Order: sequence, then structure tokens, then C-alpha cells
Amino acid sequence: MGDKMFMGASTKQGHDIANKSREIVISLIKDDSKALSKEEQDIVERIVHSTADSEYAKLVSISSNFVDNNLKALKNNKTLLTDINMVKYGITQYDGVVECYIKNPDVIEIAKNQKITRAAAAIQFAAKNDFKGIIVVGNAPTALYEAIKLYENNEIDLAFIVGVPVGFVGAADSKEALKNSKIPNIIIKGPKGGTPVAVACVNSLIQTMKSK
Amino acid sequence: MGDKMFMGASTKQGHDIANKSREIVISLIKDDSKALSKEEQDIVERIVHSTADSEYAKLVSISSNFVDNNLKALKNNKTLLTDINMVKYGITQYDGVVECYIKNPDVIEIAKNQKITRAAAAIQFAAKNDFKGIIVVGNAPTALYEAIKLYENNEIDLAFIVGVPVGFVGAADSKEALKNSKIPNIIIKGPKGGTPVAVACVNSLIQTMKSK
Repeated sequence: MGDKMFMGASTKQGHDIANKSREIVISLIKDDSKALSKEEQDIVERIVHSTADSEYAKLVSISSNFVDNNLKALKNNKTLLTDINMVKYGITQYDGVVECYIKNPDVIEIAKNQKITRAAAAIQFAAKNDFKGIIVVGNAPTALYEAIKLYENNEIDLAFIVGVPVGFVGAADSKEALKNSKIPNIIIKGPKGGTPVAVACVNSLIQTMKSK
Repeated sequence: MGDKMFMGASTKQGHDIANKSREIVISLIKDDSKALSKEEQDIVERIVHSTADSEYAKLVSISSNFVDNNLKALKNNKTLLTDINMVKYGITQYDGVVECYIKNPDVIEIAKNQKITRAAAAIQFAAKNDFKGIIVVGNAPTALYEAIKLYENNEIDLAFIVGVPVGFVGAADSKEALKNSKIPNIIIKGPKGGTPVAVACVNSLIQTMKSK
């Protein structure tokens, strides 16, 4: 991991804080992440750093083909499609395109006509408009279900999914569905997750890719 | 609270999910938020909804003058200044300006010259450029310290601060410092906090203001 870039810190003071935080996080997650690869440990470390919640080390689940698939996809600057704009604006170091269609007028129209969420409509819209890339869901379980459905029908070209929607209704089930699919994935078991978790995961992967 | 707008849901399906989630959240936070006003309970409810972490109901601390000050400031469309862009893009229903200076070239220059974080430099930059409004810190303790210092030196015109930076280094202390200041504030005790907490808090306040 490039020392200067750690956790996005760009000044001496920011860098010192990040390093000290890193030590604390590593001591907190050590036991739970023993079985993980270095790249996977980096992801967990960054998630716990971003949430100050070490329970995430127990809740994360990463499919065996996840890291290899993502390093290839990110190296090829595949498009990153996020469910909401907050997630998009957290991904600051990517050389490829980061896209979010939630406010697209066509998406709003699809949602209205089909009576589905705008987050689900945005995935449908992407699939119909030749999207090839990576899907990052930090919030909407409906977006995750839509992506899995389209993948199973061969209607979307996906490298992998970061599937970490947060919430007490639907989120846990949608993540289990992703885990049980053939899509390379990372999920957080149970209701927890959200924007910082999604962003931490993607930024860690980008950093790993750039350091190789 | 406008039923149609609850939690930003804008379709029937999104609305049903939000309502069911709301019931669960209310049952989880009931005991810990008994002593709070309706407006304060709404804030806690939205934070727990956004994080799926009911511990926040135990960690939140709201100064007595906080809600009154914010309703007045938001009604007057005072500028909201956020520490990072992720927070800015989570605030989607405000009629006033939402600003973030972290990428401003002058801010980057101030940070370099004074060897401080860009987040702290951004607060300094705002104060020097006639900022009057509300500061929302979801991530950088250094931004919070800078805002408190400027306020105590009468160098910034502040209505209130949402001070919920996340992290194991500096975050908890910076929030205690805010709590002990004269600035109307909301904080999360300890290391937890972050972007979704800051956004949940502000969006709840905006919704309360609009419903009055």
C-alpha cells in the first residue's frame, strides 16, 4: 500500500492520524481476519477504519474469485456503477468512469412505469445501455436484486458486485441472495453496511490495484 | 413528517420498505430516546435507520439549544458547509446552498503552507470568505477543532455544528471539545460517526423544518 496515499490522507497531519488509526484497527481485526489474504485484510481494515466499528470484521464475506476479478476489471478501467450519488462521490482515486443514474430522467420514468424503486430502475437502465463493469450497492437492496436477476438472465455484463446495502428491511436477504449467486462478490452479513462500507471496499481495491 | 417524503423514498416500493424499517427502528431506540423531544427522536431514528446500528441511540448527545437554532437557520436557508463531498451529496432536499471546499485550490494551498489538513484549511477558508451558516463534519476531527477555535476567536459566524467525525484517533476528543463549547451542537460520543450519520442528522432537521 502506497504510504503517501494511505486512507486518502494528503498532508503530514492527516498521514500521522491515518497511521496511528491503522495500528489500532489492525489490533482490533487481527483475530477475525487471520484466514483472509493480504488484499482481503486490507479491505476489512479500511471498512473498520471508515466506520470505527470492529464488528464488520466478523460480518464480511468475500467470494473466492472476488479479488482476482476486481483487480482485472479495475486495471481495465471498467465503469463503476453506484446505487446513489453519495457512494459515487466517495470514490475519488479511480482512473475509470464512476457513474450513478439515480437522477436520470429516463430512470425516473422507468421507476414510475414499472412501480419499482429508482435504484432498481437505474440498474435496468444501465443494462439496456450497454453497461459493462462493476456494480457498487451501498444502500438499496432493490438494486442488488435487479442486478442479480439481470445477470441470471444474461442481460448484464458484470465483473463483480460490492453488495453492502444497509437496513433492517430487505438488506440482509438481498446480500444473502448475492452471496448465493455466481457473481464474484463481497457482502456484509445482516442489516449493517452502507455508503462508507461500499466506498471503503472500492477504495481499498483501487489502492491494491495501483500498488501492483 | 411528510409521509410521502419519508427517508427520501419516492416510489410505492421504497415507501413500504421505509415504513416497515421505521417500525423496527422505533422499537429499537424507544428506551434510549424516551427523554428526547419529538424532533430529537426523529434525528436518532434517522441515524439508526441509516446505519442499522441501534447503539447510536445510546451515543448521541444534543445540546439544549440545538433544535431551535437549526430550525431558524435552515428556514433562512443558511449555507451548509460540509467537510467532504460525500456528505454534501447526501443532502438532497435542501433549498439553501450546500458547500464543500476540500478540493478548492486556495484550500489546498492553505493546507500546504500551514501544514494542516485540507479539511481544517477548508473551514479557515470559509471563515475568511464571509461564511455564515451551519457546519457539518462527518469525518475530519481537524475540521471540528478549527471551527471551534475560529468560533471562540469570533472569527466565524456559526448557527450550529453537526459534529460526528468517525475514527479511532482524535474523533472522540474533538466531539467532546464541541460538546463543551458554546456552539449549539449534536455529537456522537466515542469513535463512531461518519458520513451517513451526518447526512441523516441534517436530512432529519430539514424534514422537520419543512413540515412546520
